[in-house]
Amino acid sequence: MVTYFYASPSAFRGAYVTLPPDEAAHARKVLRTRAGDTIAVVDGQGGWYQVAVDVAAQDHLAGQVVASEQAHGEPPYQLTLAVGLLKQRNRWETLLEKCTELGVHAILPLTTDHGEKATLRRARCERVLVAAMKQSKRSWLPALHDPLPALEALQQQAGASGLIATMDAPADAHPLAVLQGCSAGPLTAFIGPEAGFSTDERAEAQALGYTPVSLGRRRLRAETAAMTITAACALAFP
Amino acid sequence: MVTYFYASPSAFRGAYVTLPPDEAAHARKVLRTRAGDTIAVVDGQGGWYQVAVDVAAQDHLAGQVVASEQAHGEPPYQLTLAVGLLKQRNRWETLLEKCTELGVHAILPLTTDHGEKATLRRARCERVLVAAMKQSKRSWLPALHDPLPALEALQQQAGASGLIATMDAPADAHPLAVLQGCSAGPLTAFIGPEAGFSTDERAEAQALGYTPVSLGRRRLRAETAAMTITAACALAFP
Repeated sequence: MVTYFYASPSAFRGAYVTLPPDEAAHARKVLRTRAGDTIAVVDGQGGWYQVAVDVAAQDHLAGQVVASEQAHGEPPYQLTLAVGLLKQRNRWETLLEKCTELGVHAILPLTTDHGEKATLRRARCERVLVAAMKQSKRSWLPALHDPLPALEALQQQAGASGLIATMDAPADAHPLAVLQGCSAGPLTAFIGPEAGFSTDERAEAQALGYTPVSLGRRRLRAETAAMTITAACALAFP
Repeated sequence: MVTYFYASPSAFRGAYVTLPPDEAAHARKVLRTRAGDTIAVVDGQGGWYQVAVDVAAQDHLAGQVVASEQAHGEPPYQLTLAVGLLKQRNRWETLLEKCTELGVHAILPLTTDHGEKATLRRARCERVLVAAMKQSKRSWLPALHDPLPALEALQQQAGASGLIATMDAPADAHPLAVLQGCSAGPLTAFIGPEAGFSTDERAEAQALGYTPVSLGRRRLRAETAAMTITAACALAFP
């Protein structure tokens, strides 16, 4: 099983890369990487690199890029998930992990009229995103935006291919049918809190031309709705 | 927001139902249900009942069925998920919860050649399943079978509409394309452990006529693969 390491673009000097200390320590101590080995490194911006290790000392591991590929493991569309921030940290982290595995491009946490008050623990969230990116063999680290009120986010993301999951969507507003009408490219999907979007938020989405989608007759938790729309995109645009 | 209560068929005497003590206590203490109120009760076997409460005492709540519906909130197919039992309890419980929300009919935990040793904590798992059934407004409580070795499970479940998710499935073995060839009815999907099914297990699946499906180019954790195939069925047969 191939292990991917993460080094942001700033860790590259031309075709030479130095792993950050925590990745270097993991490579050395857990995976026993030595000089002469070849490892796979992703830069979180779509770059995948095969690296021939030439230095593997305590917390320091570096080497020469011998092969590379752009958009490695990435889908042909860019899905931004605009989703009500959850109070329960384990549910929020499950959302981040699963949606990363399923190909999300960016996550925009929302504060909503009916949502619970919650705070974003950025450092923890980033660790979850990095681990899921590496585990799922992606090369893009999903961007985690600062939380925005839903009304503001709806305006910011307005444009082509905006979807909104609501319980009152027409029954025929099936995600796959709706996605067939979209081209693979930038997509934004709004997912409300469990109590749903407010009348104001839904009116704004309608005024701005967002397409309602129905995620079926069962009541899904917010993180399950987020995973389902992310999986639907992956299934619709393989 | 409607709260569903759970009472197994044995709690019904004709059209009169008595909630189990924990459900009764929850109804009384948390939701302040009183005699004269109407509540929604599901029996875990597809039955949904509107119940007029006539007794609401300490830990004892009972009433008369005034309306009922069969297969309430249930999909038109019955998906059995045969999936490698996970060692990490929180990941296993996430799988149970999410797949219940997404419409799974039964879960058959597998012991596999490449899987980790793990035990099933049945009482905890049942609580997760019941909570997810009620939360998602389903009426069917997914059956949780006893763990079986994968080879035995493959034989037991052999028949029409058996799928197996493998990393070496042909790229065109897309779940939606495969599911279009199935009729809505009994379906079984085998999901391997993260290290994949062994050569023996894959050979047995092939010999028994299971259809390989590919869940895409990204490496999914076992529980994410389980959710994805469950979501794919929900999307394919709305």
